[in-house]
Amino acid sequence: MSSSAVDYARQNHPRFLDELKAFLRIPSVSTDPEHKSDCRRAAAVLAADLAAIGLQNVRLIETAGHPLVYGDWLHAAGKPTVLCYGHYDVQPPDPLDEWLSPPFEPTERNGNLYARGAVDDKGQVWAQVKALESLLAATGKLPINVRVLMEGEEEVGGEGIAAYVASNPPDLKADFALVSDTELFAPGLPTLCVGLRGMIYTELEVRGAKTDLHSGMYGGAAPNPFVSLAQILARLKDEDGHILIPGFYDDIIPPSPEELAAWRSLPFDEEHYRISEVGSRQLVGEAGYSVLERTWARPTLDVHGIPGGFIGAGAKTVIPAKALAKVSMRLVPGMTPAKTFAQYKGFVEKIAPAGVDIEVRLIHSGDPCLIPVDNPYIQAATRALHEVWGKDTVFIRSGGSIPIVGDFDRHLGLPSVMMGFGLPDDNLHAPNEKFHLRNFELGIESVVRFLEEAGR
Amino acid sequence: MSSSAVDYARQNHPRFLDELKAFLRIPSVSTDPEHKSDCRRAAAVLAADLAAIGLQNVRLIETAGHPLVYGDWLHAAGKPTVLCYGHYDVQPPDPLDEWLSPPFEPTERNGNLYARGAVDDKGQVWAQVKALESLLAATGKLPINVRVLMEGEEEVGGEGIAAYVASNPPDLKADFALVSDTELFAPGLPTLCVGLRGMIYTELEVRGAKTDLHSGMYGGAAPNPFVSLAQILARLKDEDGHILIPGFYDDIIPPSPEELAAWRSLPFDEEHYRISEVGSRQLVGEAGYSVLERTWARPTLDVHGIPGGFIGAGAKTVIPAKALAKVSMRLVPGMTPAKTFAQYKGFVEKIAPAGVDIEVRLIHSGDPCLIPVDNPYIQAATRALHEVWGKDTVFIRSGGSIPIVGDFDRHLGLPSVMMGFGLPDDNLHAPNEKFHLRNFELGIESVVRFLEEAGR
Repeated sequence: MSSSAVDYARQNHPRFLDELKAFLRIPSVSTDPEHKSDCRRAAAVLAADLAAIGLQNVRLIETAGHPLVYGDWLHAAGKPTVLCYGHYDVQPPDPLDEWLSPPFEPTERNGNLYARGAVDDKGQVWAQVKALESLLAATGKLPINVRVLMEGEEEVGGEGIAAYVASNPPDLKADFALVSDTELFAPGLPTLCVGLRGMIYTELEVRGAKTDLHSGMYGGAAPNPFVSLAQILARLKDEDGHILIPGFYDDIIPPSPEELAAWRSLPFDEEHYRISEVGSRQLVGEAGYSVLERTWARPTLDVHGIPGGFIGAGAKTVIPAKALAKVSMRLVPGMTPAKTFAQYKGFVEKIAPAGVDIEVRLIHSGDPCLIPVDNPYIQAATRALHEVWGKDTVFIRSGGSIPIVGDFDRHLGLPSVMMGFGLPDDNLHAPNEKFHLRNFELGIESVVRFLEEAGR
Repeated sequence: MSSSAVDYARQNHPRFLDELKAFLRIPSVSTDPEHKSDCRRAAAVLAADLAAIGLQNVRLIETAGHPLVYGDWLHAAGKPTVLCYGHYDVQPPDPLDEWLSPPFEPTERNGNLYARGAVDDKGQVWAQVKALESLLAATGKLPINVRVLMEGEEEVGGEGIAAYVASNPPDLKADFALVSDTELFAPGLPTLCVGLRGMIYTELEVRGAKTDLHSGMYGGAAPNPFVSLAQILARLKDEDGHILIPGFYDDIIPPSPEELAAWRSLPFDEEHYRISEVGSRQLVGEAGYSVLERTWARPTLDVHGIPGGFIGAGAKTVIPAKALAKVSMRLVPGMTPAKTFAQYKGFVEKIAPAGVDIEVRLIHSGDPCLIPVDNPYIQAATRALHEVWGKDTVFIRSGGSIPIVGDFDRHLGLPSVMMGFGLPDDNLHAPNEKFHLRNFELGIESVVRFLEEAGR
């Protein structure tokens, strides 16, 4: 299907790329106070471009940290409204000596554009903005109503946007969100992420003696919180990866047979994944579930660290007074943080060995998220992606969470279309981050056609 | 039985006490480089006194750290030779604001002498030296041959004396050692410590992925070394304190029925111990064994800390690449570090969960030690103690180790008579350390009579 906006995008692509390079040259490292003004400069450049292409009400929204960038175009009467999201901040470039070209001097090489932020997320932000420009320039309007909300703190926790979204301001009223901060499952394979795991992150504290004791003098009579903690943890998950908390699996809504069949057809090589991504002797997990099911659609329990005892070099013969395990669980659709935490806490309290006191604390939590594949905006996205990429969309999930997606859902009631154009080997958060140049082009076209489809 | 040396000691006691106070005023804190010259000064004062009372070959023996002090008197032909041991260094006095009188200004109060080092170990060193003085001054000779070897690094690991003893120099040739660095089981109760537990201190490393991984992305498929470690640790010791390593208990030589009967008659209040010393909800350990048996005559397994993961505040969603447990076992007579370590290592390797690599390392070890109650020097000591204290000696053990006792045994073949005069509430290593004044007096008399008995 022809599209004058796509034609415009193709004709103007060299300029779009030049503009992206200029955007990437701004070292908007959000975690580094020395780059505070660079973050603001990146926000200003983005805002200026939004205004230049024809968005209205463009402004910076101040937060406790780096500002949000807002703009809108709301003249598509009777059409839905999309909230376009991305982030202009980037990870630190360290370690610098591993970059083949300077991180803030965007360099084309092997069909890729190398720079910090190339794919995460400035390149994807620019793809959204240039799609809007193409539509406005080629047709004088947008096919649907558009609000743009970009943040500058995604890499440092996103507190500013979270607070703003939680306040549910009138200018975020929309029908769905377009989140461009994900990747294709494989090169050339149009991909939508439709599910995210939720989580509870907890601390499990075990206290024994009132003070640290000498293990020679008291060993055998004084409770050892580390041993008790190990005994508790070993009863939470067996060696087959099965979680032993009563009721833990009760409410899970499993993926549909169609979704599972689709996952099985994805180009995924478990042995390659084991060797190149994990690098362990073997993969672990629940029998009867594929790796993709285990990481996307099954809950897990992980221990992240056990502070509290002697962690120096050599030997110290101490029975520590307390031990603390950082324990998190990933939740899948059907599960809720509150119920899972209550089950976990109750079980731990029940199995706590004699002699110790325990305390279970919830540090933070997030709901799992699942966008039905038959959602009309997901359907519109698949039609658009097929037009651009010539292939059927694959629906994947992510084992992690994207907090803003949960925030959009919880506070604004918006389903998110997670349409991203990165590749699995794009070196996010690592040296030599890149954006495949062809994906930048097709990303712009994908957003153009998605908004056109959403407006039909 | 009358003893002119005891008479001398009683007559000269005020001076002995003044000398001890002067000795205590030297802040010989071995761990603090700022007190290096004070340590040397304490060594020099001690050496000068050994020479003044009539010992020969008195000298400082240099080490990599603080010097040893040596002196001898070897003119009791046909009589055995004792090696007298103590240490002139002290713990730091912190926290200073909890002292009721300054730590290096010895103060008499409530029948006690308060000062850092009062009981650990300068007061006990001085008791030995003043006993030698009393014997030499009252009789012109010593009842047995005597070598004195005092160290200045006991509170920092005792490396200097360990190296010196390991070289087995001719001037340490003796028949037994007198170690005065222990305490009475209860006030007024003459006590000899005749057993020490040995130990192996190990590191158990568990490695999963080649690098830290995001627990959202990889949770459910990547091995979690902390979970695996907990599973291993939980299989080493059950909730009743029973160690599950095959063969672990096989070689134990249990205490004799007489020794057990004697322990049962000791004034020991388990509930008081739980509340005032341990301060835990309840005591733990193997069913069927008293607390004294558990801590003196039963092996244990303790975990001291688990470095390797996320130990900061808050939440980090990481699956650490590795986890490391500091695990030690206390050994009792019959057990050997080599065999126990081999059993432990073999068992851990056998039960290691799938997906992880493990490595078990021995950091250090020490043999258990048991001096037979019918050893002639122990027997001599009991006769001497009865003479002085008017009571039968109680034989106790210690759950910890005194490395020098193992070194004397291993390198010099010497049994140690661990005859000390501290009290359980003497605040070793804590503010308001004290030495009961009466115990200083009776300690001198005990050493006098012990050497007399040993020479009969």
